[in-house]
Formats: sequence, structure tokens, C-alpha cells
Amino acid sequence: MSQASVLQTPFRVIDIIRKKRDGGILSSAEIEYLVAGCTNGSIPDYQMAAWLMAVVLRGMTREETAALTQAMLHSGEVLDLSFLRAKKVDKHSTGGVGDKTSLVLAPLVAAGGLYVPMISGRGLGHTGGTLDKLEAIPGFRVGLTVSEFHHVLKACGCCMIGQTEKIAPADRKLYALRDVTGTVESPYLICASIMSKKLAEGTDALVLDVKTGSGAFMKKEEDAVFLAELMVETGERMSKQMVALITDMNQPLGRMVGNTLEVEECIEILHDGGPPDLRELCLELGAWMLYLGGISKTIAQAKQLCEQIIASGKAFDRFRQMVELQGGDVSTVDDPARLPHTAHRVDVPSPRAGYVTAIACDQIGTACVILGGGRERKEDSIDPAVGIVIHKKIGDKVSIGEPLCTIHCHSETQAVRVKTLLKESYQIEVSAPAHKASLIHRVIYKREH
Amino acid sequence: MSQASVLQTPFRVIDIIRKKRDGGILSSAEIEYLVAGCTNGSIPDYQMAAWLMAVVLRGMTREETAALTQAMLHSGEVLDLSFLRAKKVDKHSTGGVGDKTSLVLAPLVAAGGLYVPMISGRGLGHTGGTLDKLEAIPGFRVGLTVSEFHHVLKACGCCMIGQTEKIAPADRKLYALRDVTGTVESPYLICASIMSKKLAEGTDALVLDVKTGSGAFMKKEEDAVFLAELMVETGERMSKQMVALITDMNQPLGRMVGNTLEVEECIEILHDGGPPDLRELCLELGAWMLYLGGISKTIAQAKQLCEQIIASGKAFDRFRQMVELQGGDVSTVDDPARLPHTAHRVDVPSPRAGYVTAIACDQIGTACVILGGGRERKEDSIDPAVGIVIHKKIGDKVSIGEPLCTIHCHSETQAVRVKTLLKESYQIEVSAPAHKASLIHRVIYKREH
Repeated sequence: MSQASVLQTPFRVIDIIRKKRDGGILSSAEIEYLVAGCTNGSIPDYQMAAWLMAVVLRGMTREETAALTQAMLHSGEVLDLSFLRAKKVDKHSTGGVGDKTSLVLAPLVAAGGLYVPMISGRGLGHTGGTLDKLEAIPGFRVGLTVSEFHHVLKACGCCMIGQTEKIAPADRKLYALRDVTGTVESPYLICASIMSKKLAEGTDALVLDVKTGSGAFMKKEEDAVFLAELMVETGERMSKQMVALITDMNQPLGRMVGNTLEVEECIEILHDGGPPDLRELCLELGAWMLYLGGISKTIAQAKQLCEQIIASGKAFDRFRQMVELQGGDVSTVDDPARLPHTAHRVDVPSPRAGYVTAIACDQIGTACVILGGGRERKEDSIDPAVGIVIHKKIGDKVSIGEPLCTIHCHSETQAVRVKTLLKESYQIEVSAPAHKASLIHRVIYKREH
Repeated sequence: MSQASVLQTPFRVIDIIRKKRDGGILSSAEIEYLVAGCTNGSIPDYQMAAWLMAVVLRGMTREETAALTQAMLHSGEVLDLSFLRAKKVDKHSTGGVGDKTSLVLAPLVAAGGLYVPMISGRGLGHTGGTLDKLEAIPGFRVGLTVSEFHHVLKACGCCMIGQTEKIAPADRKLYALRDVTGTVESPYLICASIMSKKLAEGTDALVLDVKTGSGAFMKKEEDAVFLAELMVETGERMSKQMVALITDMNQPLGRMVGNTLEVEECIEILHDGGPPDLRELCLELGAWMLYLGGISKTIAQAKQLCEQIIASGKAFDRFRQMVELQGGDVSTVDDPARLPHTAHRVDVPSPRAGYVTAIACDQIGTACVILGGGRERKEDSIDPAVGIVIHKKIGDKVSIGEPLCTIHCHSETQAVRVKTLLKESYQIEVSAPAHKASLIHRVIYKREH
């Protein structure tokens, strides 16, 4: 949009900022004007920053949130996957520690007869990222062209890539600005950011895994529920099938934290093994994906189908096929010992006997970042081999000196930096915890099921 | 401050923004860090904009407001007027229509034995500006150097200039940013902006004329009182003698609106004439200036002294001397008919008989701006000759067709543009208004008097 055409619009940015500042409700046209001006650079960052802060403090209605999501979605390319015969479904997680379900779900649901066009992100703060995990597989390419993406999807039913420059450019601009202006923490802005990217994939249904607990961005369950309801409603307004599961993130999911380690654990699940909590969550999320995609009539049936697909080896086969199609070294999938591993293992012994009653899950994630398994700055590179193997989880009995977890590192010196942090992230008491949080706290689904 | 030294500071801008966003209280050191970074450009505008919006919506404590004022004050030069033997006093008005008291007060109080180092502003929105009025006098220079300012002050006791580049540069930067980010309307930011500039003048005492009513920025009296108390307390924290008068701006002050016209009206006052409301306000404000400056023991005595000074012609003499010292053509002061006048006069007749019960005072100001007597954009030039002479004020009886006011303009065409606006700004009813607002609504003074 040229400066001249901006001047011809019926809006003034200052009036839109003032309206939101004073608690007013913006029209779709006003929101579209802002997003377009932000994307093409005609509205300066300082005006967008003032508006973002007003949104953080004044909030938005459901209509405004939907309008913002729509405007951001249409700021760039929306993938057209109508050439695929079956329904397209996807899953999005708000991020956690050891949260690796995407690597299981994409091939599982593809083997169930749906398409999974998955655009994922990198690690953020103390949480890991799907793209970083995939890149632990030597040769795996997450930066495919649109035609390569189409090809892989068609061939094996799933494809996992990173965000392209062309998808929701408004979100990239706004996110960078939010990051430096203290305006990240707004459910309305988080919803629009997530949903605009996910809807640009051309998916028909979306399963949201909204994490809550010590390892999640939303520590309080009420905040997680609020965001989940907002995203479900926003997706439904755009005629997408939506569900949100509020899931526990008070301890790492599964036993592995770190990129190679997490790929290995996913392969265990795909071989019908792996830790029970990770398996359970994959089955639940997978069941919802198949159910929303119309494959099964009930969630219970869909869950059974997921179990059968895994047991049959079909899910693993799809994963192997996807890795091969995306340039990854399949010999590492067949023999995960060939994935990049560290030479050193350092145990973190329990300082006392008792029961694990709580885990500061974000500290486990931070320990992995410090080891080099995540990024402290955007430009940092990732070490796929490092990580933490969790031996004790909440409710487990532990004797003095028994390992709580094991650090995978390149030297003793490297381990020293995180050993205390890991030890202190465990709370050990004489009695077992009275209450153990369930893995799935709540399901938010507006329709009959 | 270099990038390196910014990195060495104990603060991160993002943390300061978040703290204010979440309703926290900032330390003086945090506020100083922000103001310094804003002034030297090391903190980008988008971060300042987000912080400003958080301040607008979260507010500030008295301590934070004082810290912000101090930091802005010390962002530039603070004038040292210690070479002057007597006390320095000044007055500041929050702006109104026909508000011309500065031109009377500076010479009046100087003739009373104090120094008045007055740094004034230009017209803003529908309100007039002291500098624009002074420049109606041919040759009058408001852009003096510091040494010229010292010279004029010493010679005649008063000097009236515009803000220099060196005074409170943080305010200039922040004000420009506030203007485009919807963050002007915050009493805390308004207080810091006004007080940082006024305290940079090196004044010992300050009389605030805080306007309220249809022609003021603060339409509601409670908002005016809140701002007044904030400014009084901020000044007192910096050991300045402070008072604030909450005064009526529901109709133009005096009878003249427009630059030449207002200079003429001030000269009438200085010749012991002029309209009663303008005279009364000048006497009240002047009395407070003399009282705070220690010239009189009581306000009553100070007011009497003001009357004597005006009656003696000493105030007029000082005005004439100041005009001469600042390069103005004194022949226009001696014979105001020589000031720039328009050739045309167009009356605005009353559409009905009755009593004036209300005046949309901001519309009168806007009419003057439309005529060219004020600025619609910063870069517009001012026409000193145009303006409006008010014949009927609130409570006055009027017959049908009798002139409510007269437009001073260059052509009939020019008058047409404002005639309807002026007519509609008058509310005329059958009965006289039951209640007539007093000129001075309230005095805010913390000490014994």
C-alpha cells in the first residue's frame, strides 16, 4: 500500500490506538487496516507497540480476536491443499519440556487415512521445538519448497516443515515487536499468532494441546483454559473443527529431554513401547485428530484404532518414509544408536530418601538449554546429542544417592553447570504426594461427541 | 551512552516495561535509565511507546511522577539565575481560549519586585499560545540566546521566550512520541512534561492556572484537580513554592480571541481597564506570584499591591520596556491601532431572544484556528490579525439579531466558514442560567496562608 492510498483510507492509526486505550471495541476494518499497515511497513513500529500494549491491558472481544487472526492469516500465502482427497488435520502444542508428540502423531494419523500438513517451530525459552528435534536426524530438511511439501504430503500423508517467509508475515513482524516490548503475554495476541499460522496450512481440523503447570508458559490452569477456549472459538468461527486438551506440564513428558533423546523415545512409542504418559497423550491426541477428521465415530473407537495402527508397525513405517522423503538418514531411524550421542553420562543422585512430590519442570528445560540442547539467543546453534534422561517422576519412591536423572554431556565440566540446578528442581519429601495430577486436565470441545 | 555501557547497566528495558505493564512501581534508577536512553536514542521508540501506553493505563505513584520529572528536567540544561538578587517566580496555564494572562502577569510581577523568567509555548489544538500572541507585535523576538535572556531579565525583571533546544530534550522527544501514539492523556505524563520544563527555568515559585470546562483540555473538574495536586506535590518535592488555581474555562477569558486582539486587551488591562473577568484573574494570579515570592504577607495585601502597580502605570511601563528589549515595535504598544488588523468585521447575530446559558468554548477556539489565528498543523503560519470579539457571555441577555460576537477577517468568504460554528457554539434559552460558575473554582495550596 503506498503512502497515498494510506492517506485515502477512512482511518487514522492514532484514533484506533486511542479507541483501544479507552477500552473500545475495534471493527474488523480497523484491525485489517492496522495489520496491513504493519505488514507493508506504512505504520511505524512505535504506533504498533503502543497499540499492542493497549491490547495487553484492555483485552479484546472474541470478534476482535477472530478479526485479528483473519487479518494476520491473509497477510500472506494460505496453502491450498484441496488437491488432496482426504481431510487435513493438525495438532498444535503451546510448548513444554519433553513434549515430543508431533513426531508420533504426524505418521500415526497419516497411517489412519488423513493428511497432516504440519508447520512447526523452534525451541523457545525453556521449551523444546519440533524442528530442532527433527534436525537431530542427520540430513533431515525442514526447509522444503511448497512443491516439495505437496509431494511429501501426497506420498506419505504427512510432512513436517518450518514456517516459510510467505506464511503470515504479519505474525513474524508482530511477534518480533511483541518480544521486545513486553507484549507477548496476552491470550488474544497469542491466539491470533498461533491460529493465523495454523490456519494458513490449509487444515480442516485442529487439535490443540494447551499445556499448564511448572513447565508450561501458562502456569495457572485458568489461563490455559481461557486461551484454549479463545482458540477453539476462533477456529470454529472460521469453520474449522476444533478441540483443545488442557494437559499436565508439571513434569517432563516421557523420560527424555534433549533432541536426539526425544527422537529415540518417539521411535520407542512407534515400536509400541515407550513411557506410559507419553504413549497415553499420543493416543488421546491422535484419537481426537482421527475423530475430527471423520475416520472414527467415537473417541473410544479412534483410540483403539491408534493402538492398532501403532501395533501393526504402520505408524513407524510412515515415520521412516517421511524421514527418507525429507532427506533424513533412515539408518538412524532403524538403529537410533547411530543418532548423535554424547560420550559422557553423569548421574544426579538424590540428596535424601523419600518420594518425589514436585518437579520444577521449567528448570529441567533450562538445564537442557544450558547444555546446548536449546537456544539462549536466536542465533545460537543446537547440540542435538546433549540432554537429560529422567528416572524419577512425581510420586516415585527414591532412596538416598539413587539417580534422579542422568545428564548426557560431552564432559564432566559441562555437567557441573547443570547438576545443582537439576538436583534443586526435584522436591523430595517423606510422604508420597496425596494428589497426583491427571495427564489430561480437561477437554474443551463445543460440539456433541 | 554507548551500546557497551548500556549492556553494563543493571537494567533491561523489557523488564521495566513488563513491571509497569503488570502494575508495579518503578524505582528512580529505572526511570532515569529510561529517560537517559530515550534522550540519547539508545532505547528505540517502539519500546518507549509500549512503556508510555503502560503508564497511561497503569498510572504512576507520586514518587514515580517526581522521579520522571527530575529525570526529564536533568536531561538538558537547567538555567542558573542565581545572579539575580530577588526571587524568581513564574506562572503556567494548562491552556484555554482567550487565555492571555501571561502578557499582563510578567510585567506586573516584575514591577512588584520579582523576576519572571517565562518560557512559553505555541498554540495547541483549539487553544492559543503566548508566543503566537507576542509575535503579533511586529519585530518581537521570542528566540533569544541565554545571554540575551539574562540581559532582558536583569534590565526589566521579566523576559518571555520560547523553549530552547537545550531545555528538557527528553520532553521534546517524549512529547513527539506521545502525540502519535495516543499517550498524551495521562496526568502523570502531563505533569512531568510541564514541570520538567518549568523547573528548568530556574524559578523559585510557580503559580499554576489549571483550566477546566468546555474550552479546556480537562473538561471535568475532578481531572483538573487531580493534575493540579500532582503538579503542586511534584514541585514541592523539589523545594519549589507551589500553588494551583482551578479556573473556569466554560467561556473565553475576556472578550478577545485572536493574537492582535488579545495583545490589545492586555494593554487595556495594563492601562487599568479591560473586561472584569480577565482583570480579576490577572489580579488573583499576580497576587499569588507576589505572595509566593515573599513580597506581601497575605494574598489580600498582594492583590491590593497588584491593583496599585497597574493603576500607577508601572506594569504598562515594564511591558513596554520588555517589548523594546526583545526587538518589538513599541509604537504598536503605544497605539494598538498600529498592530496588524483585518479590514473586515462580520457580526454573528443571535438567532433568538433570551439569555446565554452556555458556550461551547472549544468551538470558539476552533473558529479562530480556522480563520488562521492558530495552527491546524505544526508547520502552518499564524495570521495575527484575525480573531473573534465576544459581545455576549454566559448570563447575558440578548435580543433577536443582536450580535453575539464579531469576526475579524479578510473577506466575507472567510467569515462564512466560521459563522455557523460560532452561532452554534452559543446556547440561548428563555430563562437566565440558575447558576453561574465562579471564575476561580478552587485553590490548591498545601501550606498555611
